[in-house]
Amino acid sequence: MRRTSFAADECPIARAADGVGDVWGVLVLREMFDGYQRFDELTGRLGIAPNMLSRRLAALVDAGLVERRRYSDRPPRDEYVLTPLGHSYRAVVVALFAVTTAATAPASRPLLLVDRATGREVEPVLVDRATGRALDEVDVEWVAGPGASPGMRARRAEVQRRRAATG
Amino acid sequence: MRRTSFAADECPIARAADGVGDVWGVLVLREMFDGYQRFDELTGRLGIAPNMLSRRLAALVDAGLVERRRYSDRPPRDEYVLTPLGHSYRAVVVALFAVTTAATAPASRPLLLVDRATGREVEPVLVDRATGRALDEVDVEWVAGPGASPGMRARRAEVQRRRAATG
Repeated sequence: MRRTSFAADECPIARAADGVGDVWGVLVLREMFDGYQRFDELTGRLGIAPNMLSRRLAALVDAGLVERRRYSDRPPRDEYVLTPLGHSYRAVVVALFAVTTAATAPASRPLLLVDRATGREVEPVLVDRATGRALDEVDVEWVAGPGASPGMRARRAEVQRRRAATG
Repeated sequence: MRRTSFAADECPIARAADGVGDVWGVLVLREMFDGYQRFDELTGRLGIAPNMLSRRLAALVDAGLVERRRYSDRPPRDEYVLTPLGHSYRAVVVALFAVTTAATAPASRPLLLVDRATGREVEPVLVDRATGRALDEVDVEWVAGPGASPGMRARRAEVQRRRAATG
């Protein structure tokens, strides 16, 4: 069953989520951030059927997160390399990591994010680049930007009207 | 076709991704962060078939991101409220927003994230809470934590061995 595509959706959240696709897409990116990029390595690490992995990789290539590169002609062997867009998803994977980690007692955490140079644990938090304020302490909202369609403007106006009405 | 469940996976990234499930799960959360929590509102905003939305909401309830609450007995009507875990996914949705936004020229951006109090645009960036350093400028890695299973320790050790070998 082909899932609904949001690749051409105007909403940037929908498009970004479409790029990674589903849980398998996230796990493929996780392995690539760990340095695994050859097909056989990825099947081994993920315990995923080869045809399923082929499909996931093709979707990541289509979405521009990954590039296929031949590293051997005889026998023919491909590896999959993150593009700059693919690299930018690291923040998404780290944000997912942070959700579960915050909900798990420190002594039970199976995985820690550390600074490779110092070994010190890192606690990832989203802040506003200009002010350094944590976004969970700032009341933020999405508004229509300069490139918004009339439909997007109407949707955002509806959110604001509704919020003003319900308080 | 029931997708593979990672709800009981040891990896916190896999579990967090499993909680939201797929693109529709992300979009439901997006609407909830905008204040929409009634079934009829969600179908209207998302343009999703009711049976599809029911399935997505049931999955979010099972994963502990959302709670169902009856707000009318006659006629019976439910609303869906984010739990604290559900609220913590806002960072994931913002990280997805940031991926597409960074890849779009400022004049073409359909959506901006702003501080509601000041209207000033906010640029979300992941930093280390203790040092304030942006995570894309720190060389971070995942290592086994105190709660890691022997299997997880072996997986992380393999990543480090491989990285040491390939440089």
